[in-house]
Amino acid sequence: MLSFDTIVALSTPPGAGALAVIRLSGPEAVHITASIFSKKNLADQPGHTLHYGTLRDPNSAAILDEVVVALYHTPRSFTREDVVEISCHGSDYVVRQVLAVLLRQGARLAEAGEFTKRAFLNGALDLAQAEAVADLIAADSALSHRVALNQLRGGFSDELRGLRARLVQFASLLELELDFGEEDVEFADRSGLARLLTEVRGVVAGLLRSFELGSVIKNGITTVIAGRPNAGKSTLLNALLREERAIVSAIPGTTRDFIEDEVSLDSIRFRFVDTAGLRDNPADEVEAIGVRRTRERIGQAALLLYLFDLTNLTPAEVAADVAELTRELPQLPVLVVGNKLDAASEAQAAAFTDLNTEYPTPNTQHPTPHKLQPVLLSAATQTGLDNLQTALLAQVRGAGLEQSASATIVTNVRHARALETAASHLAAVQQGMEIAVGTELLAADLRHALAALGEITGEISSDDLLTSIFTQFCIGK
Amino acid sequence: MLSFDTIVALSTPPGAGALAVIRLSGPEAVHITASIFSKKNLADQPGHTLHYGTLRDPNSAAILDEVVVALYHTPRSFTREDVVEISCHGSDYVVRQVLAVLLRQGARLAEAGEFTKRAFLNGALDLAQAEAVADLIAADSALSHRVALNQLRGGFSDELRGLRARLVQFASLLELELDFGEEDVEFADRSGLARLLTEVRGVVAGLLRSFELGSVIKNGITTVIAGRPNAGKSTLLNALLREERAIVSAIPGTTRDFIEDEVSLDSIRFRFVDTAGLRDNPADEVEAIGVRRTRERIGQAALLLYLFDLTNLTPAEVAADVAELTRELPQLPVLVVGNKLDAASEAQAAAFTDLNTEYPTPNTQHPTPHKLQPVLLSAATQTGLDNLQTALLAQVRGAGLEQSASATIVTNVRHARALETAASHLAAVQQGMEIAVGTELLAADLRHALAALGEITGEISSDDLLTSIFTQFCIGK
Repeated sequence: MLSFDTIVALSTPPGAGALAVIRLSGPEAVHITASIFSKKNLADQPGHTLHYGTLRDPNSAAILDEVVVALYHTPRSFTREDVVEISCHGSDYVVRQVLAVLLRQGARLAEAGEFTKRAFLNGALDLAQAEAVADLIAADSALSHRVALNQLRGGFSDELRGLRARLVQFASLLELELDFGEEDVEFADRSGLARLLTEVRGVVAGLLRSFELGSVIKNGITTVIAGRPNAGKSTLLNALLREERAIVSAIPGTTRDFIEDEVSLDSIRFRFVDTAGLRDNPADEVEAIGVRRTRERIGQAALLLYLFDLTNLTPAEVAADVAELTRELPQLPVLVVGNKLDAASEAQAAAFTDLNTEYPTPNTQHPTPHKLQPVLLSAATQTGLDNLQTALLAQVRGAGLEQSASATIVTNVRHARALETAASHLAAVQQGMEIAVGTELLAADLRHALAALGEITGEISSDDLLTSIFTQFCIGK
Repeated sequence: MLSFDTIVALSTPPGAGALAVIRLSGPEAVHITASIFSKKNLADQPGHTLHYGTLRDPNSAAILDEVVVALYHTPRSFTREDVVEISCHGSDYVVRQVLAVLLRQGARLAEAGEFTKRAFLNGALDLAQAEAVADLIAADSALSHRVALNQLRGGFSDELRGLRARLVQFASLLELELDFGEEDVEFADRSGLARLLTEVRGVVAGLLRSFELGSVIKNGITTVIAGRPNAGKSTLLNALLREERAIVSAIPGTTRDFIEDEVSLDSIRFRFVDTAGLRDNPADEVEAIGVRRTRERIGQAALLLYLFDLTNLTPAEVAADVAELTRELPQLPVLVVGNKLDAASEAQAAAFTDLNTEYPTPNTQHPTPHKLQPVLLSAATQTGLDNLQTALLAQVRGAGLEQSASATIVTNVRHARALETAASHLAAVQQGMEIAVGTELLAADLRHALAALGEITGEISSDDLLTSIFTQFCIGK
């Protein structure tokens, strides 16, 4: 075990509540707590026990709070160090006072993620598991929760370790050949290695494919809503949000980022980004700027929801709008939605429901690949809203949501990058064998592939890497 | 001990954090937790111990989280019932899932304050102590923290019980006299009772006096800032808030109510209420409404801070404004503050510093009692700001802040009301003795006084009273 100083932080969210938990970890955790705890000597108590008592400022003898102290002795703790968790009254004032006194008694305020970092450095968690702690805390749907928990429990790490162990065996045989370099022997069975490489490359490719879904699970699907003014974008958003709002408001303190609104459908988050709207006549200068901005936002989207007023536009106009919006993004999935079904005449609705041909595109240089049957609905009366929800989910289902129940899903960008590196080196090994390059080159590429896989679980790590990972954590974790 | 069902709630503040604590209390607390906890049988474990394990949804077998369970066995717990505290990962999603499964396994969601209410009903805390739990959580200054903690630790309750015990002795002797009513005996020594009454009435009166300070400590001092437009109210507020803002922003999640801004000076909170400002010519209808609104807010204030522009107004105009503002509130303390000292000429400043006479008042019917030397400052350059802070604190010091270090301070409106009732009945007893009324009347008044004192600690309580007290708590406490 590595030796550290003793760190302290508030581990529960700030704010008023019944309880707040202040956590210490390190060789002096028990001693520092005991120095301000009255009633019994904590140092004499066994681990995994709870002790009720009073905290006092040793300088002024003022009582800080009545608390319960939880003791964990090394190595049976989250960090594998001595850990103390102080449950005090959930008041910011009390927490500040207790923290101030603990700092004066010799503890140091923990950096973001420092408890989890110690757990990793002391071997309680590997790196992928440590990262899953942050993912688990941020999890806000059944899928993201399950993926993070699976990773925390080592499912992903086990899979990687299995791959590595088999490659390591071949790598050592190759290294052995290098030691006997003069004698031109082949300890490593080349055909066995080729079979293994094909298999491992298949698994890595599968993990990489899962990242697309993993990213959706973790970050939600950024959906840009575009359309002409008065197409009913706000009404649609409110209709989609109606149920969700009730859920969100039941959890005080839920925070939102810059994304305007989020809706969870079947535990997939859709992050809706509103746009300024397209004008009837985008010819002049000012309008062109508006369209450019809208297109910038569309450029960052995973899905474009184009909304139009059924009573107002013809199929040709809709097709022209969609073609214009996606001119530079021919691969972007588009969901075309016709609104105001309640106000539309039968002929107006029929003009779109009978549409079954590919949209004409005004720009022959970029023929649009979208062949979309519009979803018709009324955001105001909520008629057809369920069709939209089904259509939204169908966009994700394409990404393989159904198979996700059992398979490992990569959600972390760092892991995806490492897998890409491993994949390219594994490909190089396989190509090298096909053209029978020397053992040195094979061994070098295999080493690089092993290093990339090892980086994910932290078997191979650097200070910079650890710092960049753990500073993304919240304080107290 | 009373018998209850098993309640559950999140006891830490909501939001993302390293840890969240879910608390159960009641006869089935251990059994319900054990039904979803894997690894060992919690029912066999001793109290005051910690157990690491996995929570599973028994229906789907899905893993909910990896947690630490803290066990407390009746009666050694906060509520004196069996209590379980589950430390899970601090994610709203995880908390919701765990709560949902615990409810399905037979727990009931706790009402606001229900844990503390059970602690009271089971005799772990008296009512005043239970109320102090909420005060402690809300405490945001050294003084309010110390007062709440003293009350939680039973300091106030002990004092009241001491008073009651001595009165009860006399009350029983009086009741005994009533039993022997026919015989006209006097078991209770009337002169001893008179001495005791004088003493107890003195203590009760002291406690009542402390309520003025207690209210200041608990709620802060509502200070209305009034003045003509461009007197510099916003600049002054910002200057006062400058230091405070840094402190406030260091505590994420600090909430504010409708009061515009708060500043803590020497651990006393000043709650500043801004007003629309007075106009030069308050003659017309619209202006009159503005002045009326300002006066309404002033009516709710503990202190009026009248701010004026030194470069702009004469002492007579200032005096007229103050007299107008306080016309119906002759007792309201007023702090007169001259701003823009940096821009004022020597003569302008001297006109106010040399002022040492009572302000003339335009309304001879209500001669203003204010004889105020204005504080001169520049909010922009912060010159003289410390003088204002001193003057603000002087307003509170009058209320007896210095003596507060040792004495019991009443901060609770309910307690103050009960003390008032007790005081009036004790006065009636004493008056009754002076005019030698019958024992029946003395005994009745003494009973009423005892009941009022007993209500504070809950020795005498009703369901309505308990409901009104505990529903003010947060859930999970």
